[in-house]
Amino acid sequence: MLYPVLVGGRWRDAIHPAGSLNAMNPETGKHLPGAYPVSTWPDIGEAVETGAAAAETLSALGPDRIAGFLEALAGTIEIRRASLVETAHLETALPAEPRLGSSEFPRLVDQLRQAARACRDRSWCRASIDTKFNIRAKYGPIGGPVVVFSPNNFPFAFNAVGGGDFAAALAAGNPVIAKANPGHPGTTRIFAECALEALTATGMPGASVQLLYHFGAEDGLRLVSHSSVGATAFTGSRASGMRLKAAADRAGKPIYLEMSSVNPVFILPGALEERAGEIAGELAGSCLLGAGQFCTKPGLIVMPENARAGEFIGRLKEGFERAEPGYVLGRKLIEALQEACIRLRKSGAEPITGGRETGGPGFRFAPTLFRVSGDIFLSSPAAFQVETFGALAVVVLSRDLDAMRRIVSVMDGQLTGSVYSHSSGNDDAAYGLIEPGLRRKVGRLLNDKMPTGVAVTPAMNHGGPFPATGHPGFTSVGLPASMLRFSALHCYDSVRPHRLPAELRDANPTGRMWRLIDGEWTQRGI
Amino acid sequence: MLYPVLVGGRWRDAIHPAGSLNAMNPETGKHLPGAYPVSTWPDIGEAVETGAAAAETLSALGPDRIAGFLEALAGTIEIRRASLVETAHLETALPAEPRLGSSEFPRLVDQLRQAARACRDRSWCRASIDTKFNIRAKYGPIGGPVVVFSPNNFPFAFNAVGGGDFAAALAAGNPVIAKANPGHPGTTRIFAECALEALTATGMPGASVQLLYHFGAEDGLRLVSHSSVGATAFTGSRASGMRLKAAADRAGKPIYLEMSSVNPVFILPGALEERAGEIAGELAGSCLLGAGQFCTKPGLIVMPENARAGEFIGRLKEGFERAEPGYVLGRKLIEALQEACIRLRKSGAEPITGGRETGGPGFRFAPTLFRVSGDIFLSSPAAFQVETFGALAVVVLSRDLDAMRRIVSVMDGQLTGSVYSHSSGNDDAAYGLIEPGLRRKVGRLLNDKMPTGVAVTPAMNHGGPFPATGHPGFTSVGLPASMLRFSALHCYDSVRPHRLPAELRDANPTGRMWRLIDGEWTQRGI
Repeated sequence: MLYPVLVGGRWRDAIHPAGSLNAMNPETGKHLPGAYPVSTWPDIGEAVETGAAAAETLSALGPDRIAGFLEALAGTIEIRRASLVETAHLETALPAEPRLGSSEFPRLVDQLRQAARACRDRSWCRASIDTKFNIRAKYGPIGGPVVVFSPNNFPFAFNAVGGGDFAAALAAGNPVIAKANPGHPGTTRIFAECALEALTATGMPGASVQLLYHFGAEDGLRLVSHSSVGATAFTGSRASGMRLKAAADRAGKPIYLEMSSVNPVFILPGALEERAGEIAGELAGSCLLGAGQFCTKPGLIVMPENARAGEFIGRLKEGFERAEPGYVLGRKLIEALQEACIRLRKSGAEPITGGRETGGPGFRFAPTLFRVSGDIFLSSPAAFQVETFGALAVVVLSRDLDAMRRIVSVMDGQLTGSVYSHSSGNDDAAYGLIEPGLRRKVGRLLNDKMPTGVAVTPAMNHGGPFPATGHPGFTSVGLPASMLRFSALHCYDSVRPHRLPAELRDANPTGRMWRLIDGEWTQRGI
Repeated sequence: MLYPVLVGGRWRDAIHPAGSLNAMNPETGKHLPGAYPVSTWPDIGEAVETGAAAAETLSALGPDRIAGFLEALAGTIEIRRASLVETAHLETALPAEPRLGSSEFPRLVDQLRQAARACRDRSWCRASIDTKFNIRAKYGPIGGPVVVFSPNNFPFAFNAVGGGDFAAALAAGNPVIAKANPGHPGTTRIFAECALEALTATGMPGASVQLLYHFGAEDGLRLVSHSSVGATAFTGSRASGMRLKAAADRAGKPIYLEMSSVNPVFILPGALEERAGEIAGELAGSCLLGAGQFCTKPGLIVMPENARAGEFIGRLKEGFERAEPGYVLGRKLIEALQEACIRLRKSGAEPITGGRETGGPGFRFAPTLFRVSGDIFLSSPAAFQVETFGALAVVVLSRDLDAMRRIVSVMDGQLTGSVYSHSSGNDDAAYGLIEPGLRRKVGRLLNDKMPTGVAVTPAMNHGGPFPATGHPGFTSVGLPASMLRFSALHCYDSVRPHRLPAELRDANPTGRMWRLIDGEWTQRGI
């Protein structure tokens, strides 16, 4: 008995499934009951076809209906809160409280409601009107269903159904074809049940949200490059992301990828002198949070090599050793951590603590710390920039500020970069030396702050230069900015007034929408 | 004797050139004097290295200096107007007047000045500030020199030095590595002389503008995928564009391509009934303009098959035959036109007029018209959507409105799509039938207007879904929108006030710049 898939507006059995998968409880290492189908092209092809039809219908429905759906979905999800928290906890071993119930769950429903507000508000589409030429433009839906591949580490906030990419794609007027993360199919199933209920209640096309649990790699490539698909959003490993990117790129299909980042933290000499212990405490907290399974986990700490660095490392070691190891999401992560330790040792890094699986059932790995000299880092920078999920960090001890600057210059693109400096201006010259290089390498630059914790707020950028993502101009978190990924620029040249979309007519459709009219942002009509 | 290249801020001989090229006068078919080097990696590598250093310097200089350079460049170009018009006329056979001198030249200098204004104004960077979280973001330079490959058909307005992509890249704060179009190296050389003069006069880094005339295909792939390059803008053939795209995509480097479009024009029944002759006249003018060498030339006309269609075709034929054939840019275009005629015949289209090279010296081809039934079009749509430069158009006679709708549905992505309808509401139902599909396929939708003539105005979209371009969310014409192609999203999280870029500090840096503060567009400070 396999769970049904959600295709074309109804739950139905998978057609010719290629196999099945079960979720795993990371706390016990045992499979959970319930088998989910591995879909083949008959399922996927039908999802594409009905998704494409839904894209046409959604265009005609307009933003209020879609916003109503997103709000209704937030409501149906709230009703299922208890079973969502319970299921997600079983499938991921993330703590039910506070993590799932009181942190990620509110974030998820808030995100859906923010998306609904952005959708109703309409300002996101950046309507631009040049009255002299009668040329008008705005962003519109991207022209087909958006495929969402979701990561393992956020069963709620980044879920392929109900998560950030989902909310952004829908709010921009596109249907979603969700590919569940195989780590939490049961959680995703509940979200999809909520979605179907909300679709029905708000009279939306049934195929606006479709769910497949899994499919083979070849079918994934075929899906993201399909002519009827609008775009793809992928959050996951660099290897899988690069394969999907190659296929989508060949077909000229937009694909947005959030792949890998080690989120360097630079501690300048004055800050180290002033508050080594405090920063070590913050860093340990940030590294260990969620068992180190965040895209923004600080994985690389760069600081001057001096006596205070020794003290800092001592405090950090203490923090790492005092912590109860959290459960990681699966056996593969344990293997990746083991491989990382071997690679780091081979590359010349020195282990400080951790580096081994803990005893007992389930998947746990002792928080792990390495140190390496700046010279060794500079001699093989790639070896130290492989993202590894889990509580693992490498401290790079830099001979001087110029070495620190060179470390920045050999860095790959990253989601974030943090700089800690003395609370007075003591470190300003050092800051000025490394900031320009770092600015080019990261999406979000932080001062005196660890990178974990990604607020869903308009100016947020959860993005960055390749290979952190596929394009440095887009963010996957932050509404309404994240919606622009799933949009095409639609220009109307001398189109008759009654045929224009409401956002581009002379009258302001909401009375409050922001539009750029003859170079001036205004809420007025023409 | 080969002309020198402009690398690292000075004119110097090419290092180990792989050969040379001459421009050709399309009016005589003879080579023009002056040989230009085909550069190899020593030239290109140096351009990348010095360009990367210039990118760092430009970031620190700020927008006013760059704006000053763009204005100075417009001035130096105006001084060289006579020799630019003369050289471009010799190299392209485009009429000195009005085309080059009175149409394209003013557009070029206006474009540079618009870019300078956008740069000074700073609103283009869409500064966004969330005071509650102290998170601030704006678009900044893309992090390395921008490579510009320019097309053959606009020796001024799209020139790799001084043209639209160049202006947008510089205004967004990036240096440019220009690859001249081999059709007009002499024109490009004069622009580069103007640029170096303006760089010197305004104290800009010399490597902010570099020029190579030509290089081999492999070196081009290496260039666009180089780790120190920020992005690439390419306007040209689909075959070359796709090769560059594959290389850039593999390296995760943004590349913006303007490749091919047949710019369909739909004439609805009422419009055909009402004003067949008038529309035929407009269409002939648009097709023949610039000898049909525009990215937005209407190449496919779709209309109902009836008696008025016969009259329309008769008028169009008359217009095509009455016109004096213009010179096309080179022998290759004659060959492409011949191949197109063979392909169209083979695919079942019926020749109406033209289809052959005209006698005499130089490169001219008789304006060419084909007709084909909607059924045949629908049976092999790809054959009728190959962009062909030159005065060539295909009329598709559609059995009914449903066939017209199906024609839309099998179309590739296009830059533009035009719809002519009855001046009253007679065609509104028909319009409603085809508009949703057409909207998804085109960047710019026009009513009762031919697509040639691309105004440089903020709401313009010279872009569209693949394969017209590489991404449906970007435009290559229209300031400041076109600058966003060469920008990365830079977020500042809790960064200390004095370290923020001026655009993100509490005070508004110009007193007039538009910023999105807590969801409200405003020119005020905080």
